Amino acid sequence: MNYRMILYTIGWVLNAAGACMLLPLICAIIYGEPVGAFLVSIAVCMVIGICLTCKAPKNKTVYAKEGFTIVAFAWIIISMFGALPFFLSGTIPNYIDALFETVSGFTTTGASILTDLDVVPRSMLFWRSFTHWIGGMGVLVFLVAFLPLSGGGNLHLLKAESTGPSVSKLVPRVRSTAKILYGIYLLFTLMEILLLLLGGMPLLEALTITFGTVGTGGFGIRNSSAVEYSAYIQIVITIFMIACGVDFTCYYLLLNRQWKTALRSEEVRTYLGIVLVSTVLISLNCRNLFSDFAEAFRHSIFQVGSVMTTTGFMTSDFDLWPEFSKAILVLLMFVGACAGSTGGGIKVSRIIILLKSIFKETKIAAHPKSTHQITFNKRPVAHETVRAVNVFMISYLAIFAGSFLIISLDNFDFTTNFTAVAATMNNIGPGLAGVGPTKNFSGYSDLSTLVLTFNMLVGRLEIFPLLVIFSPHVWRR
Amino acid sequence: MNYRMILYTIGWVLNAAGACMLLPLICAIIYGEPVGAFLVSIAVCMVIGICLTCKAPKNKTVYAKEGFTIVAFAWIIISMFGALPFFLSGTIPNYIDALFETVSGFTTTGASILTDLDVVPRSMLFWRSFTHWIGGMGVLVFLVAFLPLSGGGNLHLLKAESTGPSVSKLVPRVRSTAKILYGIYLLFTLMEILLLLLGGMPLLEALTITFGTVGTGGFGIRNSSAVEYSAYIQIVITIFMIACGVDFTCYYLLLNRQWKTALRSEEVRTYLGIVLVSTVLISLNCRNLFSDFAEAFRHSIFQVGSVMTTTGFMTSDFDLWPEFSKAILVLLMFVGACAGSTGGGIKVSRIIILLKSIFKETKIAAHPKSTHQITFNKRPVAHETVRAVNVFMISYLAIFAGSFLIISLDNFDFTTNFTAVAATMNNIGPGLAGVGPTKNFSGYSDLSTLVLTFNMLVGRLEIFPLLVIFSPHVWRR
Repeated sequence: MNYRMILYTIGWVLNAAGACMLLPLICAIIYGEPVGAFLVSIAVCMVIGICLTCKAPKNKTVYAKEGFTIVAFAWIIISMFGALPFFLSGTIPNYIDALFETVSGFTTTGASILTDLDVVPRSMLFWRSFTHWIGGMGVLVFLVAFLPLSGGGNLHLLKAESTGPSVSKLVPRVRSTAKILYGIYLLFTLMEILLLLLGGMPLLEALTITFGTVGTGGFGIRNSSAVEYSAYIQIVITIFMIACGVDFTCYYLLLNRQWKTALRSEEVRTYLGIVLVSTVLISLNCRNLFSDFAEAFRHSIFQVGSVMTTTGFMTSDFDLWPEFSKAILVLLMFVGACAGSTGGGIKVSRIIILLKSIFKETKIAAHPKSTHQITFNKRPVAHETVRAVNVFMISYLAIFAGSFLIISLDNFDFTTNFTAVAATMNNIGPGLAGVGPTKNFSGYSDLSTLVLTFNMLVGRLEIFPLLVIFSPHVWRR
Repeated sequence: MNYRMILYTIGWVLNAAGACMLLPLICAIIYGEPVGAFLVSIAVCMVIGICLTCKAPKNKTVYAKEGFTIVAFAWIIISMFGALPFFLSGTIPNYIDALFETVSGFTTTGASILTDLDVVPRSMLFWRSFTHWIGGMGVLVFLVAFLPLSGGGNLHLLKAESTGPSVSKLVPRVRSTAKILYGIYLLFTLMEILLLLLGGMPLLEALTITFGTVGTGGFGIRNSSAVEYSAYIQIVITIFMIACGVDFTCYYLLLNRQWKTALRSEEVRTYLGIVLVSTVLISLNCRNLFSDFAEAFRHSIFQVGSVMTTTGFMTSDFDLWPEFSKAILVLLMFVGACAGSTGGGIKVSRIIILLKSIFKETKIAAHPKSTHQITFNKRPVAHETVRAVNVFMISYLAIFAGSFLIISLDNFDFTTNFTAVAATMNNIGPGLAGVGPTKNFSGYSDLSTLVLTFNMLVGRLEIFPLLVIFSPHVWRR
């Protein structure tokens, strides 16, 4: 294990965290809010960061296990230090709660323990939403794009951090791939800010809502989430949520005018199909709750987009919708967005591969001597990938079951506990009942809060990096 | 596809069903209850059965696909005809409900749509419980044991019907294996009847409760399930429930004095460990609900045994227990009993293999060039078996999600719908909330009742036979 390289990268993560906090610091200065908490947090990050990065290690090799370890620790460390402003300013007096809120931000979950946003300083709300933007495309992806970090091990970092069953390099160089991804991300961000400003939204709100949308996070700055917004703004948010749930590779292909390849993507087509079918079913099921079908459709597609891309905004308290609509939303929580997007969940591509493996098996049962390989986007799927997807699902279920068991010690009802785990592991934010869209996670004990915090990291990093750092084999020489 | 052989075997299944109905007919005669419904049902089964079996097919070959097809249809047909007495007698006027009750019986689920057992004729209660006993060890296992059915394809029938990831032949001949299994099953049945009679239970009740216990079914003849029974009787039931959740191979080994091999079984040790740990945790969590720890322990082990072996009896309304205890019970619903037992659920051995596959994968991540194979009972697990277990889990989840979605159309709450699917797919019987231990399934619509009926078959046949008959590849020439 290349310990020096791990520490060196973590140092850069801290430097980046400190630099990112300059933005909310500026925000605090503009609004005349206290700046102490941000100044101290930046100083702490920078001092430790600079100490760790002052001397680059001679051996910069990063293998798979170092890749997983770096990614896991980078996310834990950035969350621990990112929570400092909330804690030091007294906005969230309990550090475990502050950690929950920060992890919820970086992992683009959007679950909150804050009960009243109206009393939270605007600079804190900005930082909270900005963590979504940082986490959306990835911390290591950013470092890889802009720093000459490791010698040839960049792909391992990208693999460990990016979402979905396999990572696709857009261009031969990993650094260039990372830069392209961040470029597209920035483009979406600017476009949404502009459209929201055109809708009459104040700048600070436009920034925070955009961070929450393109990062598919879901933190807002109003207690009512997106309920009070105009239909225009709700539609803008809907479009950008759904767009950011699409594999970013597709946008790269579109920008390069490779229309055919982009449109052929099995995952994106399935994803859009699910969005459409779910919206129609929910609209029909809920049409009596709204004045007409068009309004029902608008709220349905917002909620479907919000839950499936694991954003977590809401325009209507869907906990009051009929059970069939809620059942669809709960299932979409698990399906999640496309691989290579900023969204969470199991991912559409994994679901496709898993369902295809069932069909393959029935074919083999019918014709035992036939050979049949699973294809995806008309290419055969490597045996390794299928195995990894299976192991992902099993680990997912095991962690889900264990978390559900521990948090049930707090004696909330079944629906609350089940959807609390689902909403955190899939990085959505709100669940149903006690953690429904108009409620929050403040009722849980410290133990449960820690478990749910862990679940958010598990969801964002797609389990494996966290499994690896807890595996004794990795640390044994 | 050997259609003639499929019809021939189904014919024998109908003959067997008709013969089995002679017992409740005798019961009706003894208690002076109407016999018409049984007479007509027996006649229908026998006429069709004899027509199909009068001429044995020349080609008796049964391959894997015929094995799956025969098993799937055998269970569907025996349930459809087994429901006739309930329907014809007017005990259950809706045929779909009667089918639900019968499938619940044969699959040893024990979920009921009957709201008041006190008004049901005793012969009907006997037939209802007797279906547990018939389904517990298996319909085809019985036919294989006592009829010269197929020429060499018996193993395919046994494989398709028996529970768990792989079938172990106790002795080289399949027929002898089936006979031994039925012998042990009969021994348990007689022992429990005797012990219940010693506890002062009337014969009819001792018979029905025994059928429900050794088949791990859960149909009782009192509305209060096992609440009113003495501590002695509750303990007898507890012991036999837990004993019938053990792989029957172990008993064969014990009878043959192969102590070491029997005690080395990883699955049985894990199973007993889970029973013990869960019982202790629930006893501690519920101790305030009972007069002392001993009483809490007695009720806890009864409920743990009942849920984990998927029997479904109850001595205390566990829907009123704290959430942590309920969470344990819900997880045990999924774990289920041992492979090769009469119990349902995912099975302990599958859970072990799945968890081991996670550890294997983290080992590979740490040392990419290492080779590591999953072992079970100190023997390597075939790649085929691991793949089959994975496909089982995925199909299980897919069917679970689809069923949950459809039954939520009835607008019951999340907990009711989730545990209704869990309780039927794992062949348990009661769930929580609206389908809790003191409630029943009568509230669901016909569509949902059919879905839940399908789930019970899916659970008992462990998915694959039903997937196969719905696969077009199987029917294509």
